[in-house]
Amino acid sequence: MSEKIVTAAMVAIGDELLSGKTKDKNIAHLADMLTTAGIELKEVRIVGDEEADIVAAVNALRQRYTYVFTSGGIGPTHDDITAEAISAAFGVPCEYDDEALKIMGAVYEAREMEFTEARKRMARMPRGAAHIRNRVSVAPGFTIENVHVMAGVPAIFQAMLDWLLPRLETGAVIHSKIVDCPYGEGTIGEGLEEIQNDHSDTVIGSYPKFDGETYSTQIVVRSRDTEAIDRAVLAINAMLSEIKAAKATKVQR
Amino acid sequence: MSEKIVTAAMVAIGDELLSGKTKDKNIAHLADMLTTAGIELKEVRIVGDEEADIVAAVNALRQRYTYVFTSGGIGPTHDDITAEAISAAFGVPCEYDDEALKIMGAVYEAREMEFTEARKRMARMPRGAAHIRNRVSVAPGFTIENVHVMAGVPAIFQAMLDWLLPRLETGAVIHSKIVDCPYGEGTIGEGLEEIQNDHSDTVIGSYPKFDGETYSTQIVVRSRDTEAIDRAVLAINAMLSEIKAAKATKVQR
Repeated sequence: MSEKIVTAAMVAIGDELLSGKTKDKNIAHLADMLTTAGIELKEVRIVGDEEADIVAAVNALRQRYTYVFTSGGIGPTHDDITAEAISAAFGVPCEYDDEALKIMGAVYEAREMEFTEARKRMARMPRGAAHIRNRVSVAPGFTIENVHVMAGVPAIFQAMLDWLLPRLETGAVIHSKIVDCPYGEGTIGEGLEEIQNDHSDTVIGSYPKFDGETYSTQIVVRSRDTEAIDRAVLAINAMLSEIKAAKATKVQR
Repeated sequence: MSEKIVTAAMVAIGDELLSGKTKDKNIAHLADMLTTAGIELKEVRIVGDEEADIVAAVNALRQRYTYVFTSGGIGPTHDDITAEAISAAFGVPCEYDDEALKIMGAVYEAREMEFTEARKRMARMPRGAAHIRNRVSVAPGFTIENVHVMAGVPAIFQAMLDWLLPRLETGAVIHSKIVDCPYGEGTIGEGLEEIQNDHSDTVIGSYPKFDGETYSTQIVVRSRDTEAIDRAVLAINAMLSEIKAAKATKVQR
């Protein structure tokens, strides 16, 4: 089992995510995919289409985490400013990439579509960046150092991530087990804290559910060590049995 | 028409949002509600249940924006650390609030439920904080200076926001109109950029849609001035008519 820890952050870019016009789908997808791959997503920032905000977010995060993934702002319209912003973040020129122009030009020609100036915008990237290919869109994403720049359209974001992820370094996968608990957090809180203290080789999360009338709880035990998870789950189940027995006694009285 | 500009940021707190276990629902809801109210959401950060990360996010954002809203981490279990983290961010003690203890104690007594130590945790807040009431949960959220701390359970987050929002200062509402465009961004990109340049009293956003085969675009024109929006929409419609006529001529030839 690899014990290496690989971390990541995401910057989701787009005014539409902050105005409520669009519900983001890429954050949850990236979180799922990274967790499965053994990359720990530590922070997400959503920023608008403003260069200074993108630069600040990317520069803060790329120094703290193994990888930074961005979504959005690499299309052909005037509000797509991510390529410029990432170039500014790294202090390198934003240029038309010859290889991208060639690939895209050939595809548009084959489709009898005009390779407009707008479409050519999608070939711009920071000098020295490498392509992120995908099987959906003609235009590539790009990687510069540890920053991976992908599209905002979910189908394209997912296709780019599918291509990229097997090429990245990954670490020990964090496994998890879920215990569905019929009691609210107020009932289990003290017992669960004790169990967390006794099982410090796991991280125990407690997620309240409210159906409009009563509370229940989903307890999630996470660890890189599956045996440690099993030990904590045993302790949680024992606690839940005790609570059940105590409630039964109370009713009989 | 109020010309005041009121801004906001959000910090969504919880390991479960970063592991992919839970799909956040509060960000999109807050974005919708703030936009309608005339508060401009400028940035969102998602962080895990780690005090240093919460403190860093809240302190960075509360100085930049009129308001900061947080979700998550104010429940009764050991992984609910938001009250401590916010207290640390402001450098004040985190204490049991007398009024909260009194209100919550009375409710639990009426329900014949034990006021456990875990439940009492939900009465802790930074010294000097004011309550955010709600019609769903017994435990209050709280406000300290310009930071509003709310629950992560969506039904409770929404109820707290319903109570809070009418009590906040709001600014000029940003209105918007949507133009559904049957062409992809590569076709309209250049024309749209010209229109944006001619209509700098609006912000024109362009959102590609991809149905697995063809692209279309949703064009969104935003402004505090509804007449400015109408002028830009007219120009966009004229451009789309021109493209349509050009395509028809091409087909006939």
